[in-house]
Amino acid sequence: MGVVIPLEEGKNKPASVKPLVDLTKADMERVNQLILSKAGSDVQMIPEVANHLISSGGKRLRPMLTLASASLFGYQGDHHVKLATSVEFMHTATLLHDDVVDESDLRRGKSTARMIWGNQASVLVGDFLLGQAFRMMVDVGSMEALDVLSAAASVIAEGEVLQLSVAKNMETTEDDYLSVIRAKTAALFAAAAEVGPIIANADKSSRSALRSYGMNLGLAFQLVDDALDYGGKAADLGKNVGDDFREGKITLPVILAYRRGTEGERAFWREAIENGESSEENLEKALGLINKYGALNDTIGRALHYGTMARDALAPLPASLLKAALLEVIDFSIQRVN
Amino acid sequence: MGVVIPLEEGKNKPASVKPLVDLTKADMERVNQLILSKAGSDVQMIPEVANHLISSGGKRLRPMLTLASASLFGYQGDHHVKLATSVEFMHTATLLHDDVVDESDLRRGKSTARMIWGNQASVLVGDFLLGQAFRMMVDVGSMEALDVLSAAASVIAEGEVLQLSVAKNMETTEDDYLSVIRAKTAALFAAAAEVGPIIANADKSSRSALRSYGMNLGLAFQLVDDALDYGGKAADLGKNVGDDFREGKITLPVILAYRRGTEGERAFWREAIENGESSEENLEKALGLINKYGALNDTIGRALHYGTMARDALAPLPASLLKAALLEVIDFSIQRVN
Repeated sequence: MGVVIPLEEGKNKPASVKPLVDLTKADMERVNQLILSKAGSDVQMIPEVANHLISSGGKRLRPMLTLASASLFGYQGDHHVKLATSVEFMHTATLLHDDVVDESDLRRGKSTARMIWGNQASVLVGDFLLGQAFRMMVDVGSMEALDVLSAAASVIAEGEVLQLSVAKNMETTEDDYLSVIRAKTAALFAAAAEVGPIIANADKSSRSALRSYGMNLGLAFQLVDDALDYGGKAADLGKNVGDDFREGKITLPVILAYRRGTEGERAFWREAIENGESSEENLEKALGLINKYGALNDTIGRALHYGTMARDALAPLPASLLKAALLEVIDFSIQRVN
Repeated sequence: MGVVIPLEEGKNKPASVKPLVDLTKADMERVNQLILSKAGSDVQMIPEVANHLISSGGKRLRPMLTLASASLFGYQGDHHVKLATSVEFMHTATLLHDDVVDESDLRRGKSTARMIWGNQASVLVGDFLLGQAFRMMVDVGSMEALDVLSAAASVIAEGEVLQLSVAKNMETTEDDYLSVIRAKTAALFAAAAEVGPIIANADKSSRSALRSYGMNLGLAFQLVDDALDYGGKAADLGKNVGDDFREGKITLPVILAYRRGTEGERAFWREAIENGESSEENLEKALGLINKYGALNDTIGRALHYGTMARDALAPLPASLLKAALLEVIDFSIQRVN
């Protein structure tokens, strides 16, 4: 079930997130400090729960986007570190709440916080992190950044509710699904990238460019994540092939295989996803159908489309190491699947 | 500046709208009768203005979508003829108002109504047709169809206003532009296709499938229209290459060429579009830049993406001549460019 993504012409090494990591290294150390300090509380359970997830090895791509997008416009102050930390806290809060809503046992190969401290603690520590995120944003004092990030917070929540309403519903269309991931994933990428030019007092077109870059990168990123769940290098990334299937999650590979299938195959999907018949045997069958209909390849094809849009969004900006690093993240996000 | 769209494997003739025309022929004759009768009025100027545009040789793709999408679900009554006529009137009203807003002299190679009867008549006859459209919808008596079509009417108007706000603004992003065409063009395609299953009492997933088909077909259709304006078979279709350029309209070929251009090239675009320096010499230069950056090919690439989404939206429906005809319209809409 290998999906081959062509490398860009003239490049003979795979795209990497390393240039972005290197360019934001000094600022990210400050973000990591601030994460630890702002996740602190006299209520001992709070740092325990928060750090469990915080220390579990996420890439911290979102705060790096904020830092890079501020530096891209010559920002010199301290606010980008606070906003980047806010963005990461919003993301962490979402993960804590998601695991409760999805009743997940594992995340990135570790027990979820809810399995160790329970659902209530996970919900409330998520709320605490969201509260801390807002305090840091307010502290920065930019009404425009507050506007962008608080709008993202409610859009993410809307996306989660929308996801509930499509959950285990095999009639979910690709458009429905795009609305979900646009809200649930891409909106935070967009906000993370947009607040950089905002605090750097860049012009409106730069804000639009970074917002559009983040939004389309987020869509590509989520689509590849969904493809990875059914193949590619899932194991290397701490994911198990078929997790989404076992949880009855509707993602694009499943939507495409379902819609393109025969009546008998569609009955299988409904049985498997809507009635939760997610045995290993059924997973094998599901993988076979996804393969039969080229659904994984076409999911990656969709991701490439959004990747191209993200690239064109940044096109007008002058060449720089930071810009090149942001562009490389697009390719990296898509090539993860190989 | 030829853009080559591969034909589907195993097919050796180009896609055509003819199967859809043939399958809806009997019903379309009734639609055409109803169009003439409902455009009638004792106020003599109304049928004159209305018929000027109505008789100018549009394909009437939108009402055909309504007829086909009702028949696809076995609809047997008369309501689809009225709704199809409503859809065409909504479209005609938009064109009348558009020509006023854009101060257009020509449409489909003929003088626009505003050039013959003036702006006021064009605005008011548009309003009259919109009113007639609503009366026919109400006459049908389906609250759900009314809901879908009236929502489309306000979304279209929103799209037009949005377009005003991005007009002659070279900083318009691809996302901004997509919002415009989604509202201005694709929303009516979506509504036209969705009301079919509604009056046929088809299930919710069939409604979503047809809506999604219409929406993505509409996006593909508009993107190809925009590409045609800068090349392809524009002349065969009663369009002049460069009309959009002369009117300072921002479409995707221009957005891509602008964003990918050098600082000097961007200055040229601003001068040409924002300051209206649209001489034939500048049009030549614009065409050269669009070619240099592959902007026409990539616009078609975007259209192919939405075409694929439209195709997958219909995938679950059982095979039939009508379904095949609707799918062929997707390819037809895109291959127009060759």
